[in-house]
Amino acid sequence: MGDVPESHPRYASLMARKKMTDAATAGMLAESALIAHGRGEAFDYLLGEKTCDVAQEAIRETSTRMKNAERCVISVNGNAVALAGTELIACAAVLNCPVEVNIYYRTPARMKALLSALNEQQKQAAELYPEISDQIFAVPILGADPDGRIPNLEGPRAKCHSDGILSADVILVPLEDGDRCEALIAMGKTVCVIDLNPLSRTARMASVTIVDELTRCVSILLKQLMGEEESPDDYWDNEKNLQDSLEVMLRTLD
Amino acid sequence: MGDVPESHPRYASLMARKKMTDAATAGMLAESALIAHGRGEAFDYLLGEKTCDVAQEAIRETSTRMKNAERCVISVNGNAVALAGTELIACAAVLNCPVEVNIYYRTPARMKALLSALNEQQKQAAELYPEISDQIFAVPILGADPDGRIPNLEGPRAKCHSDGILSADVILVPLEDGDRCEALIAMGKTVCVIDLNPLSRTARMASVTIVDELTRCVSILLKQLMGEEESPDDYWDNEKNLQDSLEVMLRTLD
Repeated sequence: MGDVPESHPRYASLMARKKMTDAATAGMLAESALIAHGRGEAFDYLLGEKTCDVAQEAIRETSTRMKNAERCVISVNGNAVALAGTELIACAAVLNCPVEVNIYYRTPARMKALLSALNEQQKQAAELYPEISDQIFAVPILGADPDGRIPNLEGPRAKCHSDGILSADVILVPLEDGDRCEALIAMGKTVCVIDLNPLSRTARMASVTIVDELTRCVSILLKQLMGEEESPDDYWDNEKNLQDSLEVMLRTLD
Repeated sequence: MGDVPESHPRYASLMARKKMTDAATAGMLAESALIAHGRGEAFDYLLGEKTCDVAQEAIRETSTRMKNAERCVISVNGNAVALAGTELIACAAVLNCPVEVNIYYRTPARMKALLSALNEQQKQAAELYPEISDQIFAVPILGADPDGRIPNLEGPRAKCHSDGILSADVILVPLEDGDRCEALIAMGKTVCVIDLNPLSRTARMASVTIVDELTRCVSILLKQLMGEEESPDDYWDNEKNLQDSLEVMLRTLD
């Protein structure tokens, strides 16, 4: 994989695949994580592997909601850390908010691998964005010692931090599972998700759904977060957003 | 995964996923195999996870071509063995033809794991189909000692058996890679593929493309192979077949 030239038409997709298989080797992922990534690849293929205008609008709306939050948090799972941990930490730095690890199949070994990866990524982020390196090192990385639970959710994935997910009013949850998204919405939170399948339960449950590939849209989100403050759109219609994303995929197939 | 009831609407899909993760643990798969499976899941989702009429026709055409072959062979990779090795051996038994392992990332450990899985599956097939158990045990499982090469194809995946793929006029290649499909077509062979992505290069290169999930369509193929002899359709239009499969997906999205 190392010899794929940057000019390759599917370079970004192949690099994302490499990040995922490396993360699997490092013990960061559940066994179904690579399958989930493959499903995403297929939907991204239908998007033409680029960020469509519809997604741009959803990113803008997400950025605005995060900037206007009382308490924001970025929730990450194995796939999110593997693909975009560095950029997500930079986003958290701009917002002065924590990053919290929350995984479906919680084992001590996986938590350790993920926290260790995030610590490395914090250093990488500081090198990549030296102008905000102080804020980057100040980002709390939560997840190791959860002291709260998300109501109406079974199993270890309900565990969370009271100063993280539990008390946040706005949460960014890339690559989320449907049950957890539903439970967070039921708590009255604004839930912004990144999901390539516009028909998934997560996509349909969320307050704002960015239908785009994670690494691509997080770079754009970071730029938006660094920009001017804006007012949230009172009329955000997430159902229309999903329908419009589907239309983009339909045009590819047609 | 063991506690998923058979009545679960996505039972078959979850069991296929289980077969794949078990095969990964057994060392039968390359690291990108699970990602490829996930891509397939997404396309199958668009098919409504059922065999459409278009696929039924492609299965019938494939069955007819295999039955009318001078020398038929079933080529298998890690995913094919993991998902449907038992049923593919039964198909080979009906046709009195070999099964040949051909993998992209060829290592002695993976070859050993696959040949050992196929030996087990041969016994399972004999138990499942006792009326043809003699033929099942007579199926040659090739792949261990390739003595030929597919022309115009680089790397270990070009290796093949002279009494298998090299001399066959009709090949069934489930879940094939595009380059290899192209090289086999260039040799003048009839190549029948099973591929959930109707836009893939494999799907477009093949003589007949079954756009369907492997475990589902192989059961149907086996029944067809056990049935009456039929004449091949001189007018098989694979491009129309792919277009029609796409239409089914479009109707799901619409």
